[in-house]
Amino acid sequence: MDAIDVIVTKRDGRELSAEQIDWVIDAYTKGVVADEQMSALAMAILLNGMNRREIAEWTQAMIRSGSRMDWSSLPGPTTDKHSTGGVGDKITLPLAPLVAACGGYVPQLSGRGLGHTGGTLDKLESIPGWRASLSNDGMLDVLGKAGAVICAAGDGLAPADKKLYALRDVTGTVEAIPLIASSIMSKKIAEGTGALVLDVKVGSGAFMKNVEQARELATNMVELGTDAGVNTVALLTAMDRPLGRAVGNALEVTESVEVLAGGGPADVVELTVRLAREMLQAAGLSGGKDPERALADGSAMDAWRRMITAQGGDPDALLPRAAETMEITVPSSGVLSRLDAYGVGLAAWRLGAGRARKEDPVSFGAGIVLHAKPGDLVREGQPLMTLHADETARFERALAALEGAYSVGETADPDLLPLVIDRVTADTA
Amino acid sequence: MDAIDVIVTKRDGRELSAEQIDWVIDAYTKGVVADEQMSALAMAILLNGMNRREIAEWTQAMIRSGSRMDWSSLPGPTTDKHSTGGVGDKITLPLAPLVAACGGYVPQLSGRGLGHTGGTLDKLESIPGWRASLSNDGMLDVLGKAGAVICAAGDGLAPADKKLYALRDVTGTVEAIPLIASSIMSKKIAEGTGALVLDVKVGSGAFMKNVEQARELATNMVELGTDAGVNTVALLTAMDRPLGRAVGNALEVTESVEVLAGGGPADVVELTVRLAREMLQAAGLSGGKDPERALADGSAMDAWRRMITAQGGDPDALLPRAAETMEITVPSSGVLSRLDAYGVGLAAWRLGAGRARKEDPVSFGAGIVLHAKPGDLVREGQPLMTLHADETARFERALAALEGAYSVGETADPDLLPLVIDRVTADTA
Repeated sequence: MDAIDVIVTKRDGRELSAEQIDWVIDAYTKGVVADEQMSALAMAILLNGMNRREIAEWTQAMIRSGSRMDWSSLPGPTTDKHSTGGVGDKITLPLAPLVAACGGYVPQLSGRGLGHTGGTLDKLESIPGWRASLSNDGMLDVLGKAGAVICAAGDGLAPADKKLYALRDVTGTVEAIPLIASSIMSKKIAEGTGALVLDVKVGSGAFMKNVEQARELATNMVELGTDAGVNTVALLTAMDRPLGRAVGNALEVTESVEVLAGGGPADVVELTVRLAREMLQAAGLSGGKDPERALADGSAMDAWRRMITAQGGDPDALLPRAAETMEITVPSSGVLSRLDAYGVGLAAWRLGAGRARKEDPVSFGAGIVLHAKPGDLVREGQPLMTLHADETARFERALAALEGAYSVGETADPDLLPLVIDRVTADTA
Repeated sequence: MDAIDVIVTKRDGRELSAEQIDWVIDAYTKGVVADEQMSALAMAILLNGMNRREIAEWTQAMIRSGSRMDWSSLPGPTTDKHSTGGVGDKITLPLAPLVAACGGYVPQLSGRGLGHTGGTLDKLESIPGWRASLSNDGMLDVLGKAGAVICAAGDGLAPADKKLYALRDVTGTVEAIPLIASSIMSKKIAEGTGALVLDVKVGSGAFMKNVEQARELATNMVELGTDAGVNTVALLTAMDRPLGRAVGNALEVTESVEVLAGGGPADVVELTVRLAREMLQAAGLSGGKDPERALADGSAMDAWRRMITAQGGDPDALLPRAAETMEITVPSSGVLSRLDAYGVGLAAWRLGAGRARKEDPVSFGAGIVLHAKPGDLVREGQPLMTLHADETARFERALAALEGAYSVGETADPDLLPLVIDRVTADTA
């Protein structure tokens, strides 16, 4: 077997055999297959596709490149959520302790942000003292104390995926749906969760710009989870406008704590509760405590405080705030018809909330607070949004990103997506 | 401009702009664009194609990556030939001095073999003392003395092509017709010839397995040459069976000298004369001495002796011979219906005539001499071919390559290609 044989098979539109897939992933992890060979193969996969069997074998080969975690010593079932990422998507923060408060164990391995969508770890790191890095024993300890843990994936988990993801990032091959699906699912399966709910975002602020692409990705991932024995469900949800009112690291933590306190923006609350119910159902826990009650009675907040404390964070500490703010006002009275997720995400990124390169720091205080959402009545001169940044020099390029990103009309845009667009299960996939 | 932008343009099936092509070739030559990025682009080009404008700009950018040669000080027009390579294709050896004997100047830059097709330089290096490496002044000196020179391309000629070719070789992207065409033509245009005849081989022993592919490649190359001001013509010629009776380095030199002496196999003589007439016509020299006369009157042989001598070789020296031979006999009486070029080429390669890796040496004496060609009447027990190798251990794997490569029947295979299949010019392209 050699790399050219594998590349040529996919280049010519033929199916890769299990042996070819196992060999190429293993050889790439070991450095026997070179980057320039893997990128040619990734491009051939992007253009010629892979079928369900190939994607499943590719995913299993990536899992086998590293270790697989085991939570069988916990007294209850594990269940996790993965979002494909969006603007203002802080759902993991209230969701993990909420599910814990209802009896699930949430062993969430998360990432840092790159580009215009924020990373969960970046958000949590705005809490003084909080640590993203834990050993396996450390994870088990936090899970035992709080029922939920959110931390960074160690180097041992699907190392082939880590190497391949970095390669795809610089070779124009990120957008291959089979490779996106296997990248996400190899990590989630290796993470050892028993149930998984996927939140596949659709719209300008998401990776998948339309419902068809999102459904293809969701179907691929649900099949992969099911084939690997993980009870997997996917929701397609709206990312044509930002989720909630806060976009930025500490700003989103504040909004998450509001939700856990029983308040917060309606869309964040609705999606958090819906995803919590899906996670509990997938884990066989639907008969237990309902998430709405856990938000109302303070038990979700208690789980949050235990989780943050167990990872060194101070849940009562003041969060970092940006030194400078700038208000954008409503240009004319009417209904806020559009508020584009990508424009807002790009502006927040330029304000300092995100990073351009892996090694860049983020500004914890930077970001945007929205004072109106699509469909809201607005009056000329009212505040529409507040920009937060560490230096005023950041505002100009953020304003440029917001140009054309919102409009006021007589009615809301009829093309706005419903918050939950569709549900994909092993039966419908 | 960055590499991902260029890759994504072609990945998504759009046209590359002149600026994108210039930038990516220049940046790749300088190492700014990495190998893994260029291989992803090469795969996208292979699968999504390039149009005539893109191929022309790609070729010009590769030429600009290095220097361009200039033969304007010669007293007559330059004309050259390029073959896409085949089994027993030694035509360059008699052809270059033959054209010189008829008034053309042939500045041929040639290569070494890799895989089952031999390299012209490997063949000539079997002549004791002959040197492939010449400076530009050295080339001009040999051209002045002999009217023809065959030597290795220097590092300064289309360095981007050299780098890209090595990359394509290990990434399953050799077979992209736009990249094959631009690779060949960038070197030939940079070589500075005024006229060019392309011999595009078709069949099992050639790169192009069928006439349609070969015509597409020929058309691409004729267009590229024409657009660059080189008077270019292509012939599609048969490579379903070996050319001539000798396959191997010194064995092919011997056959070439037979042709120059007025003898040699009919197919080699016919193709050499045809290509010589095309080269002379393309250079505006059709009214001069006819190649058949130059073979008959010894003037082509004189040019050969001058050319070999000017490059340090001894035209009268004994050529290396392999220590061991093995005869294969005709299995049954009848007509030799098939003699597969690829099988014979692979066998010669395994006997030691070719190399597996760039740094391997070749055996000058190894190869195969054919005693019958397709269409010949043969009698059981007669010699069919003689294998030549430096060690008897080589014979077994060569015999395996020849299994099923020939058959004896009642008539010749009706699917045998005509020697010259088609002619492609700027008007027909």
